[in-house]
Amino acid sequence: MTYNAVSPNVLAQFKSILEEQYIINAEKEEFQQYCQDQTEDLVFYPEIVLKPGSADEISQIMKICNEHQIAVTPRGAGTGLSGGALPVHQGVIISTERLNKIIEIDERNFQSTVEPGVINQVFQEAVKERGLFYPPDPASKGSCFLGGNLSLSAGGPKAVKYGVTKDYVLNIQVVLPSGEIIWTGANVLKNATGYNLTQLMIGSEGTLGIITKIVFRLIPFPAHTIVLLVPFRKEEEACAAVSKIMMAGIVPSGLEFMEREAILWSANYLKISMVVPDDIQAHLLIELDGNNLERLYQEAEHVYEVVGQFNIGEVLLADSEAQKNELWKIRRNIGNALRASTVCKDEDTVVPRAELPALLKGVKEIGNRYNFKTVCLGHAGDGNLHVNVIKGDMSDFDWQNTVPKGIHEIFELCVKLGGTISGEHGIGFVQRPFIGIALSDIHINLMRGIKQVFDPKGILNPGKIF
Amino acid sequence: MTYNAVSPNVLAQFKSILEEQYIINAEKEEFQQYCQDQTEDLVFYPEIVLKPGSADEISQIMKICNEHQIAVTPRGAGTGLSGGALPVHQGVIISTERLNKIIEIDERNFQSTVEPGVINQVFQEAVKERGLFYPPDPASKGSCFLGGNLSLSAGGPKAVKYGVTKDYVLNIQVVLPSGEIIWTGANVLKNATGYNLTQLMIGSEGTLGIITKIVFRLIPFPAHTIVLLVPFRKEEEACAAVSKIMMAGIVPSGLEFMEREAILWSANYLKISMVVPDDIQAHLLIELDGNNLERLYQEAEHVYEVVGQFNIGEVLLADSEAQKNELWKIRRNIGNALRASTVCKDEDTVVPRAELPALLKGVKEIGNRYNFKTVCLGHAGDGNLHVNVIKGDMSDFDWQNTVPKGIHEIFELCVKLGGTISGEHGIGFVQRPFIGIALSDIHINLMRGIKQVFDPKGILNPGKIF
Repeated sequence: MTYNAVSPNVLAQFKSILEEQYIINAEKEEFQQYCQDQTEDLVFYPEIVLKPGSADEISQIMKICNEHQIAVTPRGAGTGLSGGALPVHQGVIISTERLNKIIEIDERNFQSTVEPGVINQVFQEAVKERGLFYPPDPASKGSCFLGGNLSLSAGGPKAVKYGVTKDYVLNIQVVLPSGEIIWTGANVLKNATGYNLTQLMIGSEGTLGIITKIVFRLIPFPAHTIVLLVPFRKEEEACAAVSKIMMAGIVPSGLEFMEREAILWSANYLKISMVVPDDIQAHLLIELDGNNLERLYQEAEHVYEVVGQFNIGEVLLADSEAQKNELWKIRRNIGNALRASTVCKDEDTVVPRAELPALLKGVKEIGNRYNFKTVCLGHAGDGNLHVNVIKGDMSDFDWQNTVPKGIHEIFELCVKLGGTISGEHGIGFVQRPFIGIALSDIHINLMRGIKQVFDPKGILNPGKIF
Repeated sequence: MTYNAVSPNVLAQFKSILEEQYIINAEKEEFQQYCQDQTEDLVFYPEIVLKPGSADEISQIMKICNEHQIAVTPRGAGTGLSGGALPVHQGVIISTERLNKIIEIDERNFQSTVEPGVINQVFQEAVKERGLFYPPDPASKGSCFLGGNLSLSAGGPKAVKYGVTKDYVLNIQVVLPSGEIIWTGANVLKNATGYNLTQLMIGSEGTLGIITKIVFRLIPFPAHTIVLLVPFRKEEEACAAVSKIMMAGIVPSGLEFMEREAILWSANYLKISMVVPDDIQAHLLIELDGNNLERLYQEAEHVYEVVGQFNIGEVLLADSEAQKNELWKIRRNIGNALRASTVCKDEDTVVPRAELPALLKGVKEIGNRYNFKTVCLGHAGDGNLHVNVIKGDMSDFDWQNTVPKGIHEIFELCVKLGGTISGEHGIGFVQRPFIGIALSDIHINLMRGIKQVFDPKGILNPGKIF
């Protein structure tokens, strides 16, 4: 597919839709921030960045781009880890940052209607004030947009109990590549009225339409949480304990695995003093939630019993807000800590939960063989392990040639174990070369066919997924 | 679209795949049972019924039908209420009844792999023996197949707390119209690897592929349940109480609305003695579940407080297995009771929960205006109201001409209230004339486009949805 450049004529049309301040060209200082996301050190330049303020303006822009076959890359907060928001075919970036209103919180129906540029944490806090709970909370919740969360069906630590983004979306307003505006479903908890366009849109990484409104379902906010930090002397035992906890009938609201170095790296980055005895290889961060504090302490006792069967160090129980927040802060900043000191490739591996020990063992073995270092952490309760490959002082040649061979093997192992190559980060741009490991030509052809139905000219987020 | 008849040549090919006993023609006694489902009194005759025993045999059959442009209607247990399994274009019925194995229950991962012809209740009981829980349980759970449940994303009473079928499916093996066999996803809790073909398949009513294996996720089985039957003197107050219960922070595992006549009709059908005082217009059946019985009784107290604000009769609390089963049996048999004594149209309306009183009021007003009687019941916690239009001694002319006008208005009201025209029964054959109320031409064109990608010759379940 070839795309046309943004001609002076097209630019003039954009100027008739948007005020000057919402059209960002390379001469403006802020242009640079739209040329990268959080993926490795990749930089791609669009021709122009547009900041529309409504679905109607997006519709007008899409019609123009569709007519002139101009590549359009939708962009949220740019916190993605697979390069989904990078304008790899230049053209136009449409930023949803001005669509940042919480339109309604409907307490009677436990629903909320928002625009896609609302920050995840802002939304969580707004609904919490009404006693309601929106569980999906990616590590970047303080900056990522809800629209971007939908594009990848983002997860986060709470997914083990509460599911991922797709489990909270009832209805989406979308601008199609044609400029037409539709709602994908209805504002109801169950819907058997034709194909599920809502679920098709979620996880489609901005390749089928631009999200302009979202109706979420919410649940009652749980009154209490307790957090446990359990140090393990053997990494594989930390992984094995995950299944044991779940099989004991405990459903934690968070069940996170962190390698020794992950936690140290983050604590150091945050300047939090944290002593990890030399013989500790990994930690599990376990959160329990519910409405009855006494029951929670009983559940914590039960967790102690289960993890006590393994070779563990001293368990830290956090029940003050300050302690809990500090532990979660360490967990959430591992990615930032790594990225602040080295270039990383963040592989979003996912397998059936009980296969985690086999996956971790395989990852380390492959890393040794290809001579790269990994720092592993992630949502162990979901079988979702983030494998951070560290560049450090590796040569660019090895980074670009040798490492991908190792990643290829890691992904093959995921699929062999019943899993796949991305749990919540998406395929985007950087995982595209690996898609054939998870999907056959039959799958790809079906997906390409669907893409063609929505976007016959292929203008929307080209160069992504397949 | 026109379809070819099953020629002697094609029949000979079927005979090379299947033993004689698995090829059912009109001369065999059992043929008749494949010509209808539970939808009104509709009867459609296929040319032949095939009962393959494996995905591979289905694949071979599909290849033949695709080559010869023969209509194929997949069929589960035939418990559908929208005519989705009726062979409206004749051709071949493929029954999945022989694919009835529970292949694996994986206790380590809380997963199970099954064939589509497993009966819902058989599956529930098998996983319960391992301490696991598969919540979706349509009223027909004693006979309906899991494959059919996927085709409509079936719900049932537990959906208010636990969600519907789509929330428990991880991966599906599907035979495409081309005969190709694919898995739609991976056996993982989260998956951001390309478009969500799994969710696209669910609710597609057998128009995109034939389901041949399903991987479900399961959850721990809750140890205890309590059931409350609350009689209301005013129907609208029963509806209004639904929102109040949820807003009080209670998440029941069942929250069912039954009109006065619904419960009487069913008790009478089951020959269960049931006294309903003259001034009672409706009941709510409320189930609470959890692992701590003491907490459940506290929650039941809380429910009493909330419903006590309304004009109610004496609440029945059922905590013995016998009592609970009897109440659920009455609820589950309302549909059977109605169908045993009259032809019904079962409209599967769904709105945001808090709009239920407005929906019920509208339904009655429209029924009065068009002179038809309705018996209403359903999953009030989900805003899903089953409106049974009773034929009784109405003339065939009115049944076929006047009633649909009223139904049209009821569906328009649903959409106006933020809802849609089917929550869990699907569009199938009988709701197809109404699809335009919920979906625009843009939606229909997208769906037709998707259909075309999967099934270019349009052979799979033609005449359904759109």
